[in-house]
Parts: sequence; structure tokens; C-alpha cells
Amino acid sequence: MEHDIDLSQYAIRTDLALEAHELVQEQQTAADQLSGVQLEQDDKEPGIKVTRLRVETEEAGRSIGKLPGRYITIEVPKLRDNDTAIEDQVARRFTREFAALLSELGITEDKKALVVGLGNWNVTPDALGPMVVENLLVTRHLFTLAPESVEEGYREVSAISPGVLGITGIETSEIVLGVVQNSKPDFVICIDALASRALHRVNTTIQISDTGIHPGSGIGNKRKALDEKTLGVPVIAIGVPTVVFASTIVNDAITYLLGHFGQSMKESSRAFNKLSVSTLPERKEPYTEEDLPDIESRKTFMGLVGSLPEQEKQQLIHEVLRPLGQDLVVTPKEVDDFMEGISNVIASGLNRALHKTVDEKNSGAYTH
Amino acid sequence: MEHDIDLSQYAIRTDLALEAHELVQEQQTAADQLSGVQLEQDDKEPGIKVTRLRVETEEAGRSIGKLPGRYITIEVPKLRDNDTAIEDQVARRFTREFAALLSELGITEDKKALVVGLGNWNVTPDALGPMVVENLLVTRHLFTLAPESVEEGYREVSAISPGVLGITGIETSEIVLGVVQNSKPDFVICIDALASRALHRVNTTIQISDTGIHPGSGIGNKRKALDEKTLGVPVIAIGVPTVVFASTIVNDAITYLLGHFGQSMKESSRAFNKLSVSTLPERKEPYTEEDLPDIESRKTFMGLVGSLPEQEKQQLIHEVLRPLGQDLVVTPKEVDDFMEGISNVIASGLNRALHKTVDEKNSGAYTH
Amino acid sequence: MEHDIDLSQYAIRTDLALEAHELVQEQQTAADQLSGVQLEQDDKEPGIKVTRLRVETEEAGRSIGKLPGRYITIEVPKLRDNDTAIEDQVARRFTREFAALLSELGITEDKKALVVGLGNWNVTPDALGPMVVENLLVTRHLFTLAPESVEEGYREVSAISPGVLGITGIETSEIVLGVVQNSKPDFVICIDALASRALHRVNTTIQISDTGIHPGSGIGNKRKALDEKTLGVPVIAIGVPTVVFASTIVNDAITYLLGHFGQSMKESSRAFNKLSVSTLPERKEPYTEEDLPDIESRKTFMGLVGSLPEQEKQQLIHEVLRPLGQDLVVTPKEVDDFMEGISNVIASGLNRALHKTVDEKNSGAYTH
Amino acid sequence: MEHDIDLSQYAIRTDLALEAHELVQEQQTAADQLSGVQLEQDDKEPGIKVTRLRVETEEAGRSIGKLPGRYITIEVPKLRDNDTAIEDQVARRFTREFAALLSELGITEDKKALVVGLGNWNVTPDALGPMVVENLLVTRHLFTLAPESVEEGYREVSAISPGVLGITGIETSEIVLGVVQNSKPDFVICIDALASRALHRVNTTIQISDTGIHPGSGIGNKRKALDEKTLGVPVIAIGVPTVVFASTIVNDAITYLLGHFGQSMKESSRAFNKLSVSTLPERKEPYTEEDLPDIESRKTFMGLVGSLPEQEKQQLIHEVLRPLGQDLVVTPKEVDDFMEGISNVIASGLNRALHKTVDEKNSGAYTH
Repeated sequence: MEHDIDLSQYAIRTDLALEAHELVQEQQTAADQLSGVQLEQDDKEPGIKVTRLRVETEEAGRSIGKLPGRYITIEVPKLRDNDTAIEDQVARRFTREFAALLSELGITEDKKALVVGLGNWNVTPDALGPMVVENLLVTRHLFTLAPESVEEGYREVSAISPGVLGITGIETSEIVLGVVQNSKPDFVICIDALASRALHRVNTTIQISDTGIHPGSGIGNKRKALDEKTLGVPVIAIGVPTVVFASTIVNDAITYLLGHFGQSMKESSRAFNKLSVSTLPERKEPYTEEDLPDIESRKTFMGLVGSLPEQEKQQLIHEVLRPLGQDLVVTPKEVDDFMEGISNVIASGLNRALHKTVDEKNSGAYTH
Repeated sequence: MEHDIDLSQYAIRTDLALEAHELVQEQQTAADQLSGVQLEQDDKEPGIKVTRLRVETEEAGRSIGKLPGRYITIEVPKLRDNDTAIEDQVARRFTREFAALLSELGITEDKKALVVGLGNWNVTPDALGPMVVENLLVTRHLFTLAPESVEEGYREVSAISPGVLGITGIETSEIVLGVVQNSKPDFVICIDALASRALHRVNTTIQISDTGIHPGSGIGNKRKALDEKTLGVPVIAIGVPTVVFASTIVNDAITYLLGHFGQSMKESSRAFNKLSVSTLPERKEPYTEEDLPDIESRKTFMGLVGSLPEQEKQQLIHEVLRPLGQDLVVTPKEVDDFMEGISNVIASGLNRALHKTVDEKNSGAYTH
Repeated sequence: MEHDIDLSQYAIRTDLALEAHELVQEQQTAADQLSGVQLEQDDKEPGIKVTRLRVETEEAGRSIGKLPGRYITIEVPKLRDNDTAIEDQVARRFTREFAALLSELGITEDKKALVVGLGNWNVTPDALGPMVVENLLVTRHLFTLAPESVEEGYREVSAISPGVLGITGIETSEIVLGVVQNSKPDFVICIDALASRALHRVNTTIQISDTGIHPGSGIGNKRKALDEKTLGVPVIAIGVPTVVFASTIVNDAITYLLGHFGQSMKESSRAFNKLSVSTLPERKEPYTEEDLPDIESRKTFMGLVGSLPEQEKQQLIHEVLRPLGQDLVVTPKEVDDFMEGISNVIASGLNRALHKTVDEKNSGAYTH
Repeated sequence: MEHDIDLSQYAIRTDLALEAHELVQEQQTAADQLSGVQLEQDDKEPGIKVTRLRVETEEAGRSIGKLPGRYITIEVPKLRDNDTAIEDQVARRFTREFAALLSELGITEDKKALVVGLGNWNVTPDALGPMVVENLLVTRHLFTLAPESVEEGYREVSAISPGVLGITGIETSEIVLGVVQNSKPDFVICIDALASRALHRVNTTIQISDTGIHPGSGIGNKRKALDEKTLGVPVIAIGVPTVVFASTIVNDAITYLLGHFGQSMKESSRAFNKLSVSTLPERKEPYTEEDLPDIESRKTFMGLVGSLPEQEKQQLIHEVLRPLGQDLVVTPKEVDDFMEGISNVIASGLNRALHKTVDEKNSGAYTH
């Protein structure tokens, strides 16, 4: 079965369930929905698209290379604009989505949270977790040392940034397990920078899931699972793509170019050698598989590369590009600004979702 | 004439004269050397390749989109390995090349230097200039306030990091001109982060030139020339590529894939649809134009895209990819480490080249 | 005349005109006001005390070691509490005081400002200027490059952080002069970290003056004047004490102890050797000269030290303490937090005072 | 008994056993050595004074407010000069002293170390631990993942910076215990910033002890013990004083002034009111109790303050100075530079002491 192919390679190319799902959908000849996967899209709020993906079975999970569970994706292309008003809007939406997930999971207001900021604080695009932790409203010590001083409406929250294996010499999962055993939270929230397939998702997308963090995911330097099985309490993962593999940029570009020229051909039936930039129709949405020309035209255009199955094409590009140094993981030049913006969004969103009392007006007061 | 085409677009895609020259060479049907350009390569020192390009005429300059002058390029692929021994070796080689250039330009040991660290210290891949300035051995104030305390063998050196237009509201050239007018150096050294065409050159290449810094070059936020004409004293530019346009990654990848398959075709004459990754010959050097298949095969492979002139192809890719967000400028994920390493190399190299007394043993003492 | 003493030593001990004035007042036997100095205090706003000192004559200036001009001091003891609401209140008050000064000086809304962030960004307590500049709303480039895009209500503002002599090798005044000559602002605003006599003023006090910055002031690494005489345009100085000399801590403590015991003696007439901590009356205000016991009692208490003239006592303490390392300049342990808070206060206050359109609601959007 | 006084207040004023011991020695009328305390001084190496204090009994421990154990203090006044050669010399001496302690404790080369960097990375003078950890040569993951790749002469070392209670909400001791339980080191090395009584010890002194870290010590935000009893393995503590209480500056200054004038009186027997700065003899060593004038002269000089017992005097000063804001903890203005220098000293010293193979020549390669 098509769905049964080994998708381990995709796993290292995207951490977004949304992208993994799209990839598999594109492979199917019939456009029918994968069984065992429920997909719900919500773009009522202007500028924000929320996708709720629910992987219901082990089999469906294998088919897209993601564990069964809930995946909520918030996409906001304008998050890149460094606009305080948009950041505030996204933080509020994040609060609602996160609170809804807590509620679905039966995690009530009295449950104690441990927030784990994964990643390396010395590597800017990997520093999401530690940056969010810096801006969290931490209360556990007040509950422990001066419970009478804690006002109504605050949750017991603790937070750590355990570092990465190369800095500590210890698997992150061992450190977190030790902290969980000694501080006894009721649930854990892990925050991590992710790798995406597409540059346009970098720093514009937030993924929340109830499946925890798993080996091989992320930028690649976290190794063992952080989930309910290993930690003994529910683990919610929050991630933002901050990097992309150079080879997937190339792969996606080739796919996109095929889509573009196929579209042009259908629309104009003009000879391709007359095609020029000025005649290209403006288009805002990425092309999808259905915009592609028929398989014969593809061969005419791209020959071998175009006709390869997606999986093989990707590996080919990857291998071929290695000597060019294009096997690198890259991040936008403006990464410093992006990281500051997105980490504030998540921190203020979390502060509101975790503490009922932190109303929307002053949630910014806890972040820098 | 082929050489007469408008190359302004290349200017914003590469700041390396070496790459601009290669690009134009590739366009030529005959493989003969551009007239007015002298090229000398030196790879006697293992692991280090030095290219000395001399653009001798205005016409040659127009043809490669670079001003007449000397361009020295030091390429060290292993600079990425974060190895202190290699960094030290490169710093020593930089010292020799830089000292040789000073000597060719007739800049003697008594000439006063002003080092200008261009770029934005808040944007990691643009912070090369400010990072180098932080580690320079600055002496001008000692010469001014306590000349008797300055030992033999030190040059009078001053340094500033003027910031960028978006931070100051003032053209960098206006600030530097003001400082030159008031502090009266005999020559100026400008240090800046550059954009390259190729990911494999990012943080592995140092360019030194005697032409100054010019509009439209760099990552794009410095606008007016810093050269002998505007500042009144010779201006030496030192640059390191730290970023690359995502669209040039794609462009180069497509060119490279063409080369790869063309090569395979020539070698094997097997049907292309049997080609697989495992049969691809290992190859360490990038492919060049001569590896490409003949023009008919290229059409079979890549159709329209492959047959376009380089310039038009590039613009096409650029336009087409805009909605994908691939018009972004990207940098490797490890940018923080790279910047620290390369800025130490340049600072310790400069300290030795500028001050005769700073011998190789203790030059590291001045950097962090 | 008492006022005629050489006050050069005070100059290096306090940059606050308020403190210099108090010191001289304390020396006077009669409690009458210094002639040529006008003093106005305003503590109508709870928690904020504003003192407006006007030095009207050269002679008065010499007597307190400060140049003739206006000195506005905003004192807010609670600024240390890291409370966002208080910071916001102080920023608003700063805006009013600063705008009033601009108005008194006849600097209208169309006048172009250059903000100079003095100090060393690598020395946390000296980084006030650069930190404020990072958060300013800079507009000059918009006026220059795209004047049609600038909305009503914005002033033309530029900003630089010129560094310090030890980093650049160039006197700061030379750099600023060069920038002024080339960018032609109508007035200059200099921001600098100051030294205070008293720990309780560190990071709780803001001084605004229209006299510019002068040699020997500040933490000691800025050397030449930045004022209307040297730059050719009016210069407003904004300063915050961030450090204090360890020896002045000792000096003030001894003076204060004298005051304390003198007070106790007057009140109780009990034998001093029965005095204990528990009998000390609570007291919130610092003691002043009039609380001190008469000169004979002082001799009984402190002997030699107490009976010395202020000036000689200070020098004595300074000399004696040198081997103890107490000649150091110190700053509170929490300096990182303090600097972040106070630089945001000044940046958002300045943004509002300089741009009419930046209303109070969103001024925070420009700062981190 | 004199030794039986409650010394809890001293505990919060100095973390140095050396200072605690000196304080108690000063209180004794007879100058005899405290029983149960062995003191050995070694100043053979020019510029470096090493004191080895051994507290042998519980009773002796109570008398100086420190636990029984070994305390090695390395004092280097010139560490403040930011001189690379001196830093290198101290790192080598540190290596010898630390290796000797390991040997005395029977900790052989095959024992696995966990280094814990205590303190708050956002508070410069409290960031010693995290700064050292950043520069450590960590190897545990190599031993675990690729043991065959580890060369002879390396020890298994891991490292964490657990943060402080205010950031994590979790007692540091709970986090460290969890990490110890899961990563199973054979011994623990804790690194922490300390508080000293004297400004001249700030950033010039390193203390090594085998007693671990205890409540109430340090700058005050670490609460529970980290020692063999709580962690189950030996704990070595490394500390450097980076801050001092403003009130102890005052206290020590008054003591010192008394000593100074007493000395002068003895030497000159001239009338005190003729004493002036110019007649003060130069003196490099701090004065001690025996330089003080007899008790009657002290009363003449300082009256009440001078005649109080040390303990009461200190509390008096503390209480009295509170309104002056002099209850603050302060650090020298140059704290950023000091911290960088001393953390490099300790990191390169530790790298050499822990890994036999890290010879002296290239130990710097692992630090920034």
C-alpha cells in the first residue's frame, strides 16, 4: 500500500504534522481523505488559519509518520512583519486554542504544570524553548514557600531549560525525568524549535500537540522521547518551525516550478518558449499537486527529476546537493527579531492560558 | 556584446568578485579569459585556496559588475568545523595576504588606520563588522594622550561601528565621513558581512579588496559608497559571505542537477529512467558549465527553465518563488558559532597585520 | 569665601547638580539659600519628587561645581521595584518635564533631533545611552528617502551610540562633532550613565539639563565637552546615576551615623553607652546637617574624623581606603534588571516627547 | 564562651571561610589559634597566596559558622588587571590545588563528574556558575554514545546550569538531585558566586571546599544544601566572591579607620588634630585588630561605635543605614569583564584538572 512506505526520511525533514499529512495526500492518486485522520480547518479570524488534525489510529499515524493524537496548527503569514498588534492577536488566539486543548484533555485549573524549554540557548534558531521560559510567570515556589500569599486564579507553574546533549553530556530526557520525579507536576509542556519543509512556514506557524516530543524530530539534537510513557504524566508539545533544510527548499521549488508552468500551459496553450516572467499570472497561494501538468508534460519539462516518486526525488536532491553544501539547515537572516517576537507570543499566550487571573490587558507585563 | 549586458541584478545576488567573474565566464561560449581581468590561484597551503583577481579596466569591471581593483579571496572549506587550529592557520594567512596588499598599495607602518565595522549588531549574520571591532587592538588614544607610553612596533589604529540606517536614521557613509574628517586617518578598513551565491561559501570565504564598499552591495542596508572618492583616503574592504538568497540556492541547484545528470548521461549512456541515487558517482567538486549536457539534452531534461539564458532564468525563479517566501535571505542555523569564529580570525589577523609587534604567539590575547 | 573653595573633587564624586547643591548648602553655617541658584520642588504627584534647579550666574555655578543652566531632577524611590505600572507613570512624567524644557528652550516640533547614546555597551552600568538608543523611534531616513510617507506628527530624529575612547581610540566628542557636521540636526540630546554620591539614588533618579555634557563628569571615560559651544547646536543632557564610589558610601555613612547619634542624644539625653539598636527611633528621611550634634559632641563621638571639614574628610577617607580596594566604583547587584527598566522608561518617554503622534497608549510598542 | 555566640549574621555576610575565621580571631582577646582549626599559608608563588584552612571539629565549625572540612583559598590581587598571562598562571595553580584535593579525597581519574553551575544567568554578578559551565569540556555523551571514540586521558564529565528558584519555581537542590539520580555521577562539583566582606576580595579570590553548598550562603537565592548527605556523592564547591554588602563596606571602613589612626597615634604620639592625609604612612596590608589603639583611645575616636562589640556594631550599622539604601548588595562597575576573566580561569583550570589529556598548552582552546 502506498501508505505503508517507510516515511522515516520525512520525519527528519518536517516536524509539522500538517506538512507530513499534505505530503502523503499529494502522493495519492485519488484525492480522498486518508482514513483514520480527521482534518478541520478554521479561518474565520482574518489573517489566522487554524488546522486541527486528529490522527486516530496507529495505522494512520504510520502513514504520515506521526504518532496518533491531536495536532493544532496556527498559521499567520503576517507574524513575520514584527507588528505588535498582530503578535498580540496571535497570543490571544494561542491562549484560546491551548485552553481548549487543556479542557479536552481534562486538565483542570488545579493541575500543576512544568514547562520545559528545549533547545540550545547559544544557537539563535534553536533557542525558542529557553526564550519562552525566560518570560513565563513561574509560581511553584510561591505555592511551596508562602501559599497564603498566592491569590486566587493562579496555577502552580514551574519551568526549566535543560540544555542540549552537546552542552550537558546528559540526554535531555534524563534531566527532565529527574525534575519530574522530584518536583511532581501533573502535566508537562515542552517547547521546542522545529524544522519545516517550507520557508514560508518559518516563524509564521505554531503547532500544539498532545503527543509529546519524539526521537529524530526537531533540529536533530534531542534524542529520547518526552511523552506520557517516559515521564508518567501527560506531555503537551508546542513548536514553531525556525529552520528548513536547504535541500527541501530546492525540492519544493522544483515542484512549484512544475506547477507554475503546468498552470501556465493549461491557461495559455502558448508555446513555452514564448513564456516570460511578465506573462506569469500573479498568484498568492502555493501551487498544489492538481495544478501540475499531466505526467507527459512533466517529463517534457523536467524529465527525470519530475517523474520520480516524491520520496526518491527528495533523496536524490539531497544526495546530489551534498557537495554544494546545500545539505545545511538554514534560517532567515532576521532570525534574532523573529525569535524575540514569537517567543513573546507564546509566553504571553501561555501565561494567560495557565493562569485564569492573568487577564488579557496585563499579560504583556510578564514578558520583556 | 555578451559582456555588455546589464548586470545590476547580479550585484544584489553576490558580493564576491570571484563569483561574479565565474558567472560571466560561464556565459561565454568560448572558454577564453575575459580581457582586462587577471586571475591568479594559489593553493600551495593545504586546505586554503587563495585567488587574486585583478580587474584592470573599466570595461572589464562593467562586464563582471565589479569596480576595477584588486580582489583577494581566501577560501577554506574547513573553517566551518569550528577548529581552533584551522582558525589560527587562516588568521596567519590572512595576515600575510593583508600585509602584502598594504605593501602593494604603498601603505607603510606609520600610516594611521581607521577600522569601520559595518552592519547591524542586532542581526547575527550582519554583525561581522561590529564583532571584529570589539576584538581589535585600538591605539589611537594612546598616541594622542600618552605618546611616550607607546612602544615601538604599534600603529595608530582607531575603530568605530557606525550602525545601520534603520537604527541611526543617518547614512553610514555620512557618519564615517564625519569621523574621517575629525580623526584624520591615512586609510580606512571597512569590514562587512556579504551575500554569496552559494551556501558552501558562507562562512568559509574571506574577500579583501582595495575598491571600498559600494551601493547595492552587501545585504542591502548600506547605501552610499565608502571609497577613496567619498572619504578622501584609500579604503580597503574586508568581507565574509554570511548569507545567501534562497532563490539563488534554487537556481544553483537546478544548474547543478543539470550538470549532474548530463555527466551521468555522458558516462553511462544508460536510460535516464534507470538512474538512481546509488548509481550516482561520488563527486567532491561542484559541477561547472562544461559538465552540462549539450543544449538538446538540457531541453529534454529541464525544458524551458534549462534553456533560458542565465539572467532570465534567475529572474524567473526569483519571481516565481516569491509567494513561497523563498525570496528570503537565509543563513546557516549555526550562524552564532560561525560569526564568533570568523570574527576572531579577522580580528587577530588584522591585529598582526597592523601592528608589527603583535607577534603570532600572543595575538589571541586581544580577542575573546 | 566659603563658596570659593575648589570643588573639583566633588565633580568626580557626583554628576547630580542636586547633590552638589546639597553638599554646598550643608557647609554653610547659615541655612540661607545660595545666591544665584533657584530651587523649586514639586512633589504633588505621589511617589515622584521633581526638583528644578536653576543656576543663574557663573559665580553660583562655581560654588556648586556645575555650569549655569537648568537642572531638572526626577526622583522615584520605587523605580527599583521593577514594577511596570510605576515605570509607565515615570515615563509619562518624564515626557511632560522634557517637553516643557524643549518649550522653554524654544525648540519647536519641526526641529531635528540627534540623540547620542554615550557610554560603553560592554559595561552594564555604563550602557544606559546605547540601551536607550536601541529603543528609540528613529525617523530621519524616512524624511530623507521617502518624505511623502511620513505622517503628520513625527519629528525628524536620528541616533548614534559612538562608543567610548577605550573602544574607538577617538574622543567621543570628535565622533559626535563629525556626525553633527554631516547630518545637521537642530539640537542634540545626550544620554549618559552618571555617578551619584548616594546608593539610594542609583537607578531611582533621572536628571535632565540644558548644559550638555562636560569633562570629568560621568564615570570618567568621556573627556571632552559636548555642548552648544563645541557642537554649534543646543545640547540637552539626560542622565541616570547607575554607580557610586565606594568611598562616598563610607563618607556618607559616617556623616549619617553622626546625625543618628546626635539626634538620639538630643532626644533622650541618656548615656550613650546605654544606647542600643532597639532604642533607635525609626526614621525614613536621611539626616541632614541640622540633626547633627553640636561640634563638641561630634568630637566626643567621632573625634578627628568628625571634626574635619567635609572636603578634607572626604579626601582622607578616600586615601585611607585605597588599600582596601574601596576606591572602586560600585553598582547594585541587580544592575542588569535596573538598566533594562530605566532605559525603557527614558526611551518611551523620549519617543512621546519628540513625536506628537506617539500617544501614550502605544508608546511601549517601540521598546522591547 | 566567646565562641558560642550566634554567628548566623556573619553567615549572610561572608561565604569565605577565611574571612569568617579572621572575624572570630579578631574577637579573641588572646591571639591564640582557634582549637580545631588548622591553618596553612603558602605564598611561595609570587603574586598568589594560598591558604588551606581545615575545620576539624563540629565545635570549631560552629565557632566560625562554617561546616567541618577543607577550605582552600587562592588570593590573587592582580586578577583584577585583566591580564591574560596572570589569568593563565592562576588557572594552572587552580588546576594543581584542585587536583591535590581530588587526590586527598580519593577521587581517582575514572570517577565520573557532574559540574553544577549555580546562579542566575540574567544577573551578571550571579552568573559565575553558568558561565563556567559554558566553557567546560563535557564528555559524558561521548562515553555513552560512542565509547570507542573517546581517547585515553579523558574523564566522563557532564554539566548543568539548573537556574535559580525565582526562574524555575523549583528548589535548585531538587533539580540537581533529579539529575544525579538519573545520570549517576561519582561526585559533584558546584560552582557559585559568593558574597565577601571586603571589596578587595571581589573577583580576586577563589575558594575550593569539600563541604558542598549550604543554606543561607551565597547571594541568598539558593536555599537547600547540596552536599554528600543530600546528593549521596561527594560534593566539592568552587566559589568566587563577586559581591559585597554595602553595610559591610561601611563597617570595615570604620574598623580600618580606627586601625589607621591608632597606628598613627602609636607611631607619632602627635596630637590628632594635627594629623593630615599627607602624614599618613603608606601601607599595603589591611590593618588588623592588633593595630587598633587601646580601648580608651578608641572611645576618644569613635565613641560609641568603636566601643561596641563587633557583632552589635555590625547590626547597628546595618539598621541605621537602611534608609540610605545602603543595605544593598553591590558589585564593582567592571563586573562584566571580571566575570568573563574569572570564569575562563576556572573553566580552563577545571578542564585540566578533570582530564589528564588536556595539557596546559591547549586548554584555552575549549574556552571562549
